[in-house]
Amino acid sequence: MPGSGSRAARPGPLSPMCPSTPLLEAETSLPHPGRHLCSWTRPGLGPSWASSVVFQSCRSCHLLFRAGAMVPHLVPRQLVRLFRWQVACARGASVQPRTWAAASRIPSLLSPWGAMGTSRLVCRSSSSTSPCAPEVVLTQERYPVTRLPFSVVSEEDLEAFERIIPGRVVTDPEVLEASNVDWLRTVRGGSKVLLRPRTSQEVAHILRYCHERNLAVNPQGGNTGMVGGSVPVFDEIILSTAQMNQVISFHSVSGTLVCQAGCVLEELSRYVEERGFVMPLDLGAKGSCHIGGNVATNAGGLRFLRYGSLHGTVLGLEVVLADGTILNCLTSLRKDNTGYDLKQLFIGSEGTLGVITAVSIQCPPKPTAVNVAFLGCPGFAEVLQTFSSCRGLLGEILSAYEFMDAECMRLVTHHLCLTSPVQESPFYVLIETSGSRAEHDAEKLSDFLEQVLSSGLVTDGTVATDQMKLKALWALRERISEALSQDGYVYKYDLSLPAEGLYDLVPELRARLGSRAKHVVGYGHLGDGNLHLNVTSEAFSPLLLDALEPYVYEWTARQRGSVSAEHGLGFRKRGVLSYSKPPEALRLMQQLKALLDPQGILNPYKTLPAQA
Amino acid sequence: MPGSGSRAARPGPLSPMCPSTPLLEAETSLPHPGRHLCSWTRPGLGPSWASSVVFQSCRSCHLLFRAGAMVPHLVPRQLVRLFRWQVACARGASVQPRTWAAASRIPSLLSPWGAMGTSRLVCRSSSSTSPCAPEVVLTQERYPVTRLPFSVVSEEDLEAFERIIPGRVVTDPEVLEASNVDWLRTVRGGSKVLLRPRTSQEVAHILRYCHERNLAVNPQGGNTGMVGGSVPVFDEIILSTAQMNQVISFHSVSGTLVCQAGCVLEELSRYVEERGFVMPLDLGAKGSCHIGGNVATNAGGLRFLRYGSLHGTVLGLEVVLADGTILNCLTSLRKDNTGYDLKQLFIGSEGTLGVITAVSIQCPPKPTAVNVAFLGCPGFAEVLQTFSSCRGLLGEILSAYEFMDAECMRLVTHHLCLTSPVQESPFYVLIETSGSRAEHDAEKLSDFLEQVLSSGLVTDGTVATDQMKLKALWALRERISEALSQDGYVYKYDLSLPAEGLYDLVPELRARLGSRAKHVVGYGHLGDGNLHLNVTSEAFSPLLLDALEPYVYEWTARQRGSVSAEHGLGFRKRGVLSYSKPPEALRLMQQLKALLDPQGILNPYKTLPAQA
Repeated sequence: MPGSGSRAARPGPLSPMCPSTPLLEAETSLPHPGRHLCSWTRPGLGPSWASSVVFQSCRSCHLLFRAGAMVPHLVPRQLVRLFRWQVACARGASVQPRTWAAASRIPSLLSPWGAMGTSRLVCRSSSSTSPCAPEVVLTQERYPVTRLPFSVVSEEDLEAFERIIPGRVVTDPEVLEASNVDWLRTVRGGSKVLLRPRTSQEVAHILRYCHERNLAVNPQGGNTGMVGGSVPVFDEIILSTAQMNQVISFHSVSGTLVCQAGCVLEELSRYVEERGFVMPLDLGAKGSCHIGGNVATNAGGLRFLRYGSLHGTVLGLEVVLADGTILNCLTSLRKDNTGYDLKQLFIGSEGTLGVITAVSIQCPPKPTAVNVAFLGCPGFAEVLQTFSSCRGLLGEILSAYEFMDAECMRLVTHHLCLTSPVQESPFYVLIETSGSRAEHDAEKLSDFLEQVLSSGLVTDGTVATDQMKLKALWALRERISEALSQDGYVYKYDLSLPAEGLYDLVPELRARLGSRAKHVVGYGHLGDGNLHLNVTSEAFSPLLLDALEPYVYEWTARQRGSVSAEHGLGFRKRGVLSYSKPPEALRLMQQLKALLDPQGILNPYKTLPAQA
Repeated sequence: MPGSGSRAARPGPLSPMCPSTPLLEAETSLPHPGRHLCSWTRPGLGPSWASSVVFQSCRSCHLLFRAGAMVPHLVPRQLVRLFRWQVACARGASVQPRTWAAASRIPSLLSPWGAMGTSRLVCRSSSSTSPCAPEVVLTQERYPVTRLPFSVVSEEDLEAFERIIPGRVVTDPEVLEASNVDWLRTVRGGSKVLLRPRTSQEVAHILRYCHERNLAVNPQGGNTGMVGGSVPVFDEIILSTAQMNQVISFHSVSGTLVCQAGCVLEELSRYVEERGFVMPLDLGAKGSCHIGGNVATNAGGLRFLRYGSLHGTVLGLEVVLADGTILNCLTSLRKDNTGYDLKQLFIGSEGTLGVITAVSIQCPPKPTAVNVAFLGCPGFAEVLQTFSSCRGLLGEILSAYEFMDAECMRLVTHHLCLTSPVQESPFYVLIETSGSRAEHDAEKLSDFLEQVLSSGLVTDGTVATDQMKLKALWALRERISEALSQDGYVYKYDLSLPAEGLYDLVPELRARLGSRAKHVVGYGHLGDGNLHLNVTSEAFSPLLLDALEPYVYEWTARQRGSVSAEHGLGFRKRGVLSYSKPPEALRLMQQLKALLDPQGILNPYKTLPAQA
């Protein structure tokens, strides 16, 4: 999630209603102020959901909102079903479940009402003709992008698709709407057809046909991407993996899961957890995102520090190439040194080199004990030293090491009425342990805390072991993005930098921007070297933007950092690739694209910069 | 190491002299029986070395052997220096240290004296003209391989190289000998020139020149490869990374090491261990192998179960492409989603797509407590169930799970005079834990043992915590390969298979081969799904080979296994690639090769099968 890291995407527990925030704030920023009266409260639905969540619906457009929550999240299925029923009764219309699952997300970054900033709630209409649905400007109108000379889908093409996947060729504009617009509502394509294959063979037939006909294709999983990579730019055919959602095999000794690309991450998590394992990745968007999309975008997420990159945990892939060739590298072997490791090419290639149709992934055993410590540190040097100490004393049980600065704490306490559990400090650190033995983990944590407190690296701290307190501590970190959204217009950067200089840019920007910025804050996954740098101002300011860009990108490039740590490039960031990769790398990427997809039909206008 | 796993490559502690093995056995199988009289004993040199090792030198050829040890290993530097001095005195000649380090290895798989089997000791001459050095047949004479139309190195070329790397162009045949022959002495090239660049720029100049002149190049690290991938086949120029051995940076917070490709793994291990970290890989050949070679061959090794594949732990690479382009992807970032992850292409590509010149790698914190348990199991089903139980109860501290069958135990006790620490069982399991807290690990291990013993999964067992006992238990597993070598001619297979069927092939082969085979044994890294399948017979039998191949490869292919789990394909196995990869994958590999190295000058005749 921009500016919040993937952790922030989890729905945090709502604090007791605070007069300065939820309902009033929400109403005034919505398209129909005063009409969002249908508020109701839903009790907690399980450990991953808030204990009490206030929802609202708009009497004009029958849209679903979550009040007081600025972080993107998914409404649980039960809730979606309940609300669908209400809406259906009101409108007498059938509603696509998928549309409503998407509609329930509330992003912190909204173009339509404020480009990249202040808008506080978002609704996504179930119909493009909804009277109050704020139109997302067509990408081709907003951005300087030219359609490449692909063919246009004809009636004959639709008939051909119907022969390949009978009954699963969708041309209904209402259904297409949700798949043409990204969930952040920043980009919008104009595709006229959505295909829902169920097998790799069907994907292969479709791509072979498109290759022959020179038709462009936009592969789409859960459409939860952050950079506009999962929706068409023009009229590309949308190739959805939604109906490719079968588990193929799970091995209860090795923990190897093999499944189709359209399996939803949360469902896979549940499946393997029932068998004593966990998925090696976890994301805020897990209720919607597809494992194929996770792999295609090389998703980072909450378990990265512990289980590492998908380049290490994905064992095999089945991929359909642009010409319809099925490349079966769906091994479930941990070791295989027979030739080049082709699957690696497709991990993180955002559907531009091939369509991932099945995934084999290594699941680690499920930890049985989890602790969270929230600590105050006197300086960033101490944050780094605490991390070193932590790695030494917590060793194998360390599963997260997050930090935030004092400004972040001021924002979450001011805007969200959260209470800091520790004394005011220049920096705060959140440490999570996950292990197989509660008493051992507690003892390790206790010894670690004693050391860092006695040495002065940490000045104050608190520890939680029960679910509610864990969530409350995580909320301080997870809801920073939400607090920022309430602070004004937000300029967001998701940077990967060497840990030693991870925070340097923050004070440097404070000095550079002076009073032009309201707040300049830094927080993120220190354990992964991932800084979320956010700048707020009262309203969007082109002058402030000019002071930030390309300065931030150039600064990051000088540190040999990455201008996109975990979100990829998609459509919206493809222009900044050269800040993190040398021209030789870019050239080789273009050569690989030309080799694997000579006509460029796969997810065009994405990942690589437009060629001159 | 073939048939032994990488663990077996570690020099195990020698047992007290056993009448049935060392000296006599060794002498009779050497090229000059009766002349290897100069035996002497060296006390232990540290935790990774035997407590007492018997060495011999040949009075005819002044070569160094280790008596009674069949597993490949490296003699410690002190010993090499001592022996060099003796040889120099005797011959009045200067000796290349590298040559002698290589000469001290004693492989279990020797072509010159017995193709793939019985030869028990190997010597490598410091001079190709040594009167007793058994000549390794030139690869071009032994194998059906045709020289591709590359240019032949001319005097002008040598002068050009001399201008690029003054004083580091080697044409001395004595020095070239060690680099032309693989350390298993199975293949031999006829290169006339060895280049020793120190920088990536020098590598780039060399490759640009070779590309223009159409000169073939054989990149070479420590020359410890198992499949003939690290030496020339014809007259390829040998491009050694030996002088590219500088650490570029180490980050003490994140544990990120950046170094040149020619750094020796053991030296890097020492470097990072002094700073509280470990290298994420460990190999028997660590005293010689280069980190660049490890990455180029995607080495597995001893820490694979715990820290995973190099595809996950390598953060960045600098690679020089065939045309001399320097591809700098030497990031030290854990997260970077800007474009395709190009470094992955080169990991495991065996120097055929580019020359790795520098590596950035993530080092995990050093564990402070290590335990080893050696257990007897009544059947393979119980071995699998014990693994499941082990993952649950040992969780994050499990670092190795190895198994061996009863035949293996009989071989090590019979041929090596080792003693089984547990009652006779159909299967044995070796479990290693590595953690940050000794008492916690001991308690976890104790609870696990109680469970598996009380449930009957394990019938007997022993646990060790001190260094000597740990080594003694590991020796039972590590020295299986050595015992096999003493049993007769050995047919070795290194297979990756799904864990559930990991052992199925062993009883199947016993039934198939009947009395034609002396022993059919199975052991390996169960935690990694890596089976070492070995068959012995009194002497090499073409009929037995016909019964084994392609049967074993076809069987493995039916299980969707890998016919080369960790050794790669190099020159000797490139023909079996198609057993583990479909034609579509092979075609894409060939296209990638053609894209990155259109003239095919980089490590020709390796990895991919010869094209028709």
